[in-house]
Amino acid sequence: MSEYTGYNGNSLEFLKINKIQVGDSVKIFADITYLGIIMPRYEHSDDKHVVLKLKSGYNIGLEIEKIEKIEKNPPIEKSLEKNQEIRNNEDLPNILLLSTGGTIASKIDYRTGAVTPVLTAEELNSSVPELGEIANIDTKVLFSEYSENIMPQHWLKIAQTIKEYSKSDYSGIIIAHGTDTMHYTSSFLSFSLAGFPIPIVLVGSQRSSDRASSDAALNLIGAVKFLIESKTNGIYIVMHQDENDETIACHIGTRVRKNHTSKRGAFQTIGSDPAFLIVNNKIHKNMKKDFFKIQGFEPKIKINEKVALVKYHPGYDPDLLKNIIDSGYKAIIFEGTGLGHIGENMYPVVKRANEIGIFMGMTSQCIDGRVRMTVYESGRDLLNLGIVPLENMIPEIALVKAMWVTGNTEKYDEIKESMLNEIASEFST
Amino acid sequence: MSEYTGYNGNSLEFLKINKIQVGDSVKIFADITYLGIIMPRYEHSDDKHVVLKLKSGYNIGLEIEKIEKIEKNPPIEKSLEKNQEIRNNEDLPNILLLSTGGTIASKIDYRTGAVTPVLTAEELNSSVPELGEIANIDTKVLFSEYSENIMPQHWLKIAQTIKEYSKSDYSGIIIAHGTDTMHYTSSFLSFSLAGFPIPIVLVGSQRSSDRASSDAALNLIGAVKFLIESKTNGIYIVMHQDENDETIACHIGTRVRKNHTSKRGAFQTIGSDPAFLIVNNKIHKNMKKDFFKIQGFEPKIKINEKVALVKYHPGYDPDLLKNIIDSGYKAIIFEGTGLGHIGENMYPVVKRANEIGIFMGMTSQCIDGRVRMTVYESGRDLLNLGIVPLENMIPEIALVKAMWVTGNTEKYDEIKESMLNEIASEFST
Repeated sequence: MSEYTGYNGNSLEFLKINKIQVGDSVKIFADITYLGIIMPRYEHSDDKHVVLKLKSGYNIGLEIEKIEKIEKNPPIEKSLEKNQEIRNNEDLPNILLLSTGGTIASKIDYRTGAVTPVLTAEELNSSVPELGEIANIDTKVLFSEYSENIMPQHWLKIAQTIKEYSKSDYSGIIIAHGTDTMHYTSSFLSFSLAGFPIPIVLVGSQRSSDRASSDAALNLIGAVKFLIESKTNGIYIVMHQDENDETIACHIGTRVRKNHTSKRGAFQTIGSDPAFLIVNNKIHKNMKKDFFKIQGFEPKIKINEKVALVKYHPGYDPDLLKNIIDSGYKAIIFEGTGLGHIGENMYPVVKRANEIGIFMGMTSQCIDGRVRMTVYESGRDLLNLGIVPLENMIPEIALVKAMWVTGNTEKYDEIKESMLNEIASEFST
Repeated sequence: MSEYTGYNGNSLEFLKINKIQVGDSVKIFADITYLGIIMPRYEHSDDKHVVLKLKSGYNIGLEIEKIEKIEKNPPIEKSLEKNQEIRNNEDLPNILLLSTGGTIASKIDYRTGAVTPVLTAEELNSSVPELGEIANIDTKVLFSEYSENIMPQHWLKIAQTIKEYSKSDYSGIIIAHGTDTMHYTSSFLSFSLAGFPIPIVLVGSQRSSDRASSDAALNLIGAVKFLIESKTNGIYIVMHQDENDETIACHIGTRVRKNHTSKRGAFQTIGSDPAFLIVNNKIHKNMKKDFFKIQGFEPKIKINEKVALVKYHPGYDPDLLKNIIDSGYKAIIFEGTGLGHIGENMYPVVKRANEIGIFMGMTSQCIDGRVRMTVYESGRDLLNLGIVPLENMIPEIALVKAMWVTGNTEKYDEIKESMLNEIASEFST
């Protein structure tokens, strides 16, 4: 990243003439006077605007033609110091923020210009100053990965880190995480940290912090508010409920899915309302039961990656399944059609998998609703072939659960029992 | 199926005492007097009710304790004759109904007691008498399969059959089809029968006709109404919009998905409203463009099944992809995360697939929204590795399109061009 990242043509010239670089704290005189920091832009942005991060944490785009004057202004250090003081306010609750990467953390690097896709306490407090007013936030950088590169080994590291804080004085833990695979991570934590005493939230953003429409600040504020006020435990994903800024949704970490590629309200609880909503800064609880089935904290931080997710479709070649079986997989989660079906042409291979003791669970590619394999003959056939209906578990979450279960036991009966035994609200009523 | 299918205990005894069998036309005296046909029930039904199909096509359950008298009543033949007459009314439009099986066709076998999971004209007209009043319906049984057993070879048979009717006097064609894989079939027909001059609808039911809540009759009536009144062409799926009986939705056959395992309104157009709605028997058009890009009818009824749908997830083993490549597959559709990503650990195998000329297209497991692979470095890496972003094509539909495209050409450039070239409304704006 250079000192003019993303600026070109007129806007680049405008910055150069005024001796302003990305990351500079500036005062801009236009229709009104703006104070803030010049942000980098995307490669293919227009050349008519500069983007300014206001002290509120919001970004705005200002048309250079309408700017009367721009001047450098170095108040950021002072602001940082002030935030630092707030951080150590003994009257406020303490929150731990673990950074793993993702959009929420990857574009906060506006001051140095360097690629430092991590959230430090200082950066966080200066970019979202409201946080320092409601909590003391300690931050820790675990790693820095876009979430498509988060692997089960990363899940283990996050869980092991969190495990150490079960008896801390934190009111809750935030994990800054890329949104792409956030619900896979949240479900692994839900199973492996069953009974963890304080709430854990994963928070991300759909629009990076250098865009005017970024949802990063509000999602973070919502996450902290939830951790302080929800009086609950469990693992949740906290994101915008929709395109508006009024409502932040807190989803059960095992009942949630990213259902839109780009919208701010991309995450949806499947089959019911979000567990909590924060509407205009007030928290509302919809959740009717405890997140965890067990009371005490019983961490089981193990995983086996030899679990396959098989999405059935017309033309799916049973030989692909045969290859999975021959490769030493311990469990197969089917994403069947409708109520939980796969074609008759799959039966011989399924039969073989059953005979050699591979656990097979059925979910539905419909995503919403419950598998019911007793309605049609074909479903009953599959039951007889040893496929276990997994109620209304979401396919991706069933996959993660099977990885976790088979990481903890190799015995078929125990695997089957654990898969059907609710641990962390993975079945909804 | 016996003459008492599904009846047991008290209800079985009730029927036996009164010498009534499944399929009998009866008059029942209770709170009011009911005329209808005794329907079979599911294996595990209670023993307190009998199910009656009313002349309207609706089924109701009647509590046997509240039945004062039941007597056999043979008006069904007369009703059939009447419908037969209506069928040949020259003033009414002609509709062709092709039966392929599925719930909508599998439980209409209430008169013979035998397993005849097909729709004949007579059965159709007697079970949904309204149909005979609005159209002459010719029926043809193609095969009788639950839709999880519908294979690409079945798609070919349906398409080849329909092709012959491009110059008939039918106003439209109905395909009775199981709901599980209906959207796979509808998209194959959309591509292979591009430009077909009259509208084609696939119709199914989520609840079989022997259940009080069956949606079969209304979906069929809606389908016929749509074919007669829509003044359009293209391939659509016609089903309940929601749990109510007021609204029937007509979805574009390449933009629709079964999103709930059991609800009557299980089908949803992804990313926009249904193309047409029939609200309280009035048709409303939302569709803004023509279904097909081309004007004339250009059937290309070919398929290649060597196309894989690869759903990426944390822990997905690149060796599974390697096996697909080594098995002679011609195309791979990725169901990536978020805006269209897969983990870095996949890059070496992807690179190899690209080198040997396998077409790779990217869709998103978010289902809704558009892939955009220029936003993040990882997306740009994948573009460089030859993966083609498929805009907002639904993963299952992209799979079917790739099967169809690679069935028609083996040349990489032509495959790529066809995949990106809209044919049958598979991209939405």
